[in-house]
Amino acid sequence: MHSVDQAIARLLATVQPIADVEQLGIDQCCGAVLAKRLVSGVNVPPADNSAMDGYALRHDSWHHADTPIPVSQRVPAGAVAEKLAPGTAARIFTGAEIPPDADTVVIQENCSEIDGSVLIKKMPEKGANIRPRAQDVAKGQVVLEAGRRLRPQETGLLASLGMATVPACRRLRVAVLSNGSELVEPGEPVAGGQIYNSNRYLLNALLRGWGFEVMDLGIVRDDPAEIQQLLGETAGKADVIVSSGGVSVGEEDHIRNVVAGLGALELWKVSIKPGKPFAFGHVCGTPFLGLPGNPASVLVTALIVARPYLWSLQGMSNTEVQPMQVRATFSRKAPSRTEYLRVRHSPKGLEIYPSQSSGILFSSVWGNGLAVQPEGHEIHKGDTIDFLPYALLL
Amino acid sequence: MHSVDQAIARLLATVQPIADVEQLGIDQCCGAVLAKRLVSGVNVPPADNSAMDGYALRHDSWHHADTPIPVSQRVPAGAVAEKLAPGTAARIFTGAEIPPDADTVVIQENCSEIDGSVLIKKMPEKGANIRPRAQDVAKGQVVLEAGRRLRPQETGLLASLGMATVPACRRLRVAVLSNGSELVEPGEPVAGGQIYNSNRYLLNALLRGWGFEVMDLGIVRDDPAEIQQLLGETAGKADVIVSSGGVSVGEEDHIRNVVAGLGALELWKVSIKPGKPFAFGHVCGTPFLGLPGNPASVLVTALIVARPYLWSLQGMSNTEVQPMQVRATFSRKAPSRTEYLRVRHSPKGLEIYPSQSSGILFSSVWGNGLAVQPEGHEIHKGDTIDFLPYALLL
Repeated sequence: MHSVDQAIARLLATVQPIADVEQLGIDQCCGAVLAKRLVSGVNVPPADNSAMDGYALRHDSWHHADTPIPVSQRVPAGAVAEKLAPGTAARIFTGAEIPPDADTVVIQENCSEIDGSVLIKKMPEKGANIRPRAQDVAKGQVVLEAGRRLRPQETGLLASLGMATVPACRRLRVAVLSNGSELVEPGEPVAGGQIYNSNRYLLNALLRGWGFEVMDLGIVRDDPAEIQQLLGETAGKADVIVSSGGVSVGEEDHIRNVVAGLGALELWKVSIKPGKPFAFGHVCGTPFLGLPGNPASVLVTALIVARPYLWSLQGMSNTEVQPMQVRATFSRKAPSRTEYLRVRHSPKGLEIYPSQSSGILFSSVWGNGLAVQPEGHEIHKGDTIDFLPYALLL
Repeated sequence: MHSVDQAIARLLATVQPIADVEQLGIDQCCGAVLAKRLVSGVNVPPADNSAMDGYALRHDSWHHADTPIPVSQRVPAGAVAEKLAPGTAARIFTGAEIPPDADTVVIQENCSEIDGSVLIKKMPEKGANIRPRAQDVAKGQVVLEAGRRLRPQETGLLASLGMATVPACRRLRVAVLSNGSELVEPGEPVAGGQIYNSNRYLLNALLRGWGFEVMDLGIVRDDPAEIQQLLGETAGKADVIVSSGGVSVGEEDHIRNVVAGLGALELWKVSIKPGKPFAFGHVCGTPFLGLPGNPASVLVTALIVARPYLWSLQGMSNTEVQPMQVRATFSRKAPSRTEYLRVRHSPKGLEIYPSQSSGILFSSVWGNGLAVQPEGHEIHKGDTIDFLPYALLL
């Protein structure tokens, strides 16, 4: 039996991250993984600028509230400021460049302008209301390391450096396969013994939400010839194959033998609930992940075990997620495998869905995250336990 | 001065949610907001089925480990099971329908089959290894209320009900405008007094990440005629207009007068830092949100103030985000406005970025969320404070 950490570590040890680099437009890069370390070629902002509408001057030009100071120029945002004439002030606006030789901006609420001169009622301290050059980013600064996933704020920051394109890792191509003769697609009639296929749509949505390209292989029956043909065609076209169901030791579970025949397959027992059986191998060199068949098991193993592996393949340097510490409103006896409990974080704390069966997907629809109960650990009502909001995993 | 909650409440009071309903394919609905309450038309699973590979029988057919029981049928997953002949067992596989009159499944590890009969070494309790009909969802059950945003697990659940299409609210159409004569687009040369436009890319990425359709209006100069033409053309085509910068009381801030002339505009002071000035109104009936111009202010006001409003427009019924409670590794004196501190949640607790200036976007690149410091509240190192991971807001 592998611990969850051991299973993840074994997967990560095999990772060959995507080496293809694409130049994405700055408006298309959010969600992608940065392929190279980025060093800023510019200062942000490029020059001292005004934080407020007001008047810019040398601090030592001001002596008294009743002494008018001539206004020698007007600097709206976007204009080039001229060197400040000695003893004068510049009318200035938010975002406008500070004229050379000015060192302070007085907000307009403390000034009155009459006949081309300004009276300054209250002088702030030297340097006030100026955003200094390079306050945000300095030229030559390492802004982002390779392997960072770009969020809206990184996108904005790279734009502020003037970058029109961003070097990103090519999107990971994930083939998705639902295994089982009992499966019927939504919208079709369901006969005796059959159920609707949910794993396909769950996995497609999850993988697309992560920004991966999905090669949707649909349903494959419990038929070795069909499985072999499909997997053989897919290997080499996808970066990784993810299947749900059909990977067990039973005589109706054919994926195992087919994958082993085309490459290699290991069946792991992972100390995870829901989950436990997890298959890992390759089909003609293309990595293969075999998730369980029950929908709650698919969700949990995809989020906890497959996620760090797939993101590492995609080129992300740090795939760890830091749990939150939240108080449990429930007690629970020690499990023999580490349980990822479907819970809801509410102002009361963590509430647990009454049934934690692996067949119940509704538990995850009801809740907003997973609480971690390590094997052998009891939970007592009021204990602070690890909580992984789905938002951190999805 | 509005509190943040008051500002949000005033915005929400005006919301007319999207009324257009689209039928989205089950494979395209993730991320959308459900337009109607959904009631399940089926049981999931539709019939009792086996949780394991093994043998199904009546519990009272078994008397002794040495008494062979004839195997009368074989039920792979997807097949129709026949009524179990009295005194016999059915070979059964995971996911296969339980034959009528069988009430227990014995796992194959506890059985041996010889000459068409099975010896059961160890009989589990009655009902073992059977997943009951409707365990996940019962026919007639309200599965999801209107206004829920669909995640991968909802997508999977709706597929399991056999739904090929899902009624969703039409995607919100958001027009985005960057205001300021100092702005230059990334990739272009930057002259004296100019800076690169980052808010456009920050906002586009944020809004697209939320699944909205972005009408990108680019940069508008500080020129009333230009602003008036652009806003006039946009009203009626977008569901809402979001601008950054240029909405203040200064003589170079023209948006205010133009919007007021075409509709109405209120300038609010909101007790939020970074942020404070926030404009709300409409352009010929199309709602208008005026965010500040500094990038960190844009990020924070978009996530905290605009987010609940935009998602309510999109049809989401509950836009509240529940903060996490995390220990601060820093002390901070009481602010006069509620501060959304750019922090990093690490195993040590919450670390704060050294500069919290509204001009510094890097603080949000460095971190993974916002800590909330209410106005008038000191933070002492070791205090447990409210933390909003970006993942819950993005």
